[in-house]
Amino acid sequence: MTDFPQFDSHVAARMVAADGSGSGGLPGYLGMKIVDVGPGVLACELEVTAELLNPFGAAHGGVISALVDHVLGAVCMPVVPLGSWPATSEFKLNFTAPARAGTMRAEARIVSLSKRTAIVRVDVTNESRLVGVAQGTVTVMAPR
Amino acid sequence: MTDFPQFDSHVAARMVAADGSGSGGLPGYLGMKIVDVGPGVLACELEVTAELLNPFGAAHGGVISALVDHVLGAVCMPVVPLGSWPATSEFKLNFTAPARAGTMRAEARIVSLSKRTAIVRVDVTNESRLVGVAQGTVTVMAPR
Amino acid sequence: MTDFPQFDSHVAARMVAADGSGSGGLPGYLGMKIVDVGPGVLACELEVTAELLNPFGAAHGGVISALVDHVLGAVCMPVVPLGSWPATSEFKLNFTAPARAGTMRAEARIVSLSKRTAIVRVDVTNESRLVGVAQGTVTVMAPR
Amino acid sequence: MTDFPQFDSHVAARMVAADGSGSGGLPGYLGMKIVDVGPGVLACELEVTAELLNPFGAAHGGVISALVDHVLGAVCMPVVPLGSWPATSEFKLNFTAPARAGTMRAEARIVSLSKRTAIVRVDVTNESRLVGVAQGTVTVMAPR
Repeated sequence: MTDFPQFDSHVAARMVAADGSGSGGLPGYLGMKIVDVGPGVLACELEVTAELLNPFGAAHGGVISALVDHVLGAVCMPVVPLGSWPATSEFKLNFTAPARAGTMRAEARIVSLSKRTAIVRVDVTNESRLVGVAQGTVTVMAPR
Repeated sequence: MTDFPQFDSHVAARMVAADGSGSGGLPGYLGMKIVDVGPGVLACELEVTAELLNPFGAAHGGVISALVDHVLGAVCMPVVPLGSWPATSEFKLNFTAPARAGTMRAEARIVSLSKRTAIVRVDVTNESRLVGVAQGTVTVMAPR
Repeated sequence: MTDFPQFDSHVAARMVAADGSGSGGLPGYLGMKIVDVGPGVLACELEVTAELLNPFGAAHGGVISALVDHVLGAVCMPVVPLGSWPATSEFKLNFTAPARAGTMRAEARIVSLSKRTAIVRVDVTNESRLVGVAQGTVTVMAPR
Repeated sequence: MTDFPQFDSHVAARMVAADGSGSGGLPGYLGMKIVDVGPGVLACELEVTAELLNPFGAAHGGVISALVDHVLGAVCMPVVPLGSWPATSEFKLNFTAPARAGTMRAEARIVSLSKRTAIVRVDVTNESRLVGVAQGTVTVMAPR
């Protein structure tokens, strides 16, 4: 529904080229890797390792929510003015099935974009099974 | 508004006694530590270390969302029938201020509890400043 | 992503045939009319009349939220066992633009369905402009 | 947690003095009446009449959601700069019990307020029973 004439393909290419291996912090610990970026869309993956499973063999919900939080801002990076910063201001997440070991993939899509605000939807799959759906707001912070 | 006659203080005591140091996975990586458990209430803390900060000095939103997800289920543990399992089915989180280095604390409170469902609110503070508020649903899974 | 082999086309046909003119209560006041029902999808429309506008010429947000609430349950009607009842247990709604006079249309789509729970997304347009997006949970209540 | 030095008691008094009987539109149809306004808090009531009940004797969820939407903006009115306008940008609502005939009351409380954004929580009761809890964002629109 939304066009993205301002989409910066160089920014997008750099996001994919960075293979995530140098990321520290939470994205680094979880092994998040941005695998595809287009106008208003982005995909990010991580491997659910044994380390991330609870005693029942399901991934901690925080793995999914951290991934959701990550892609909400990331999908906006190539469509906001250079120097500005997309910050997640809120999101809502429904878990639809337990996530197991294997690849977890979040696909984010901007459904509405104004100067200061983007509304984004996210689908999270685990070995192709839908494990979560989310919807959130990203606020575009002006350059400092 | 809600009473919790079924509150099991032994379960609560065990949750606090477990000092978190043995936790693996995401809670272990983030250093989540349950510090207080009462009937329908629970507090959990973690230290926002330099490792968890982004280049702007703010904690990744996934740290807060993982903490929220964690306490949603945990606060229900001492009030559900033995052997059953509280699973977060959805939540919504608003970020109210950037989280910096220092102690982050989530306080969860059950506002509604039926046989199968709890509705829980969470306040997250960072060095006493409110950084996030959440509301979610926990589904009580029957013993297997 | 989801199939609906249990879809009951007779129930669906009856929902569309009922032209809404006999509805009392809030749906009747707002003039909600179900215009299309398929397996896991449903569209419902209403006319934003002058009566529903605030002094700034925008529809009260409650018009959109009531429409969202309505379609969340309605889209589940033809796919739940006969005699059971789909009840909205929670939803989240983002407003993406002010709604003006003219036709408002909500399209609901079930993205996940289990025995007891459906997760549904809703897009709301106003004269073809996106004015709101929602996501919610419907609980299937067993026959009494 | 939040102070409201800018609270305008004259605005608040006018909101309560307006007894709602002159309101048209959705608030008028539902009979919403603001009964109490303080710094960062507001209460609004309506009567759940037979007209608003479904065949199962429960109020349509849209009655609750419209009330929630209404108080989200209203509670901000006395604390935003004169001439600016508080617009609900999103909210999330959990239904905790069916609402029946009788008085429905929504109490809103601002939990965070910055220049452009307020985060608000709402409790909805029906004859003193909790029927819904909500959390949402209000954006302060600058004067035109």
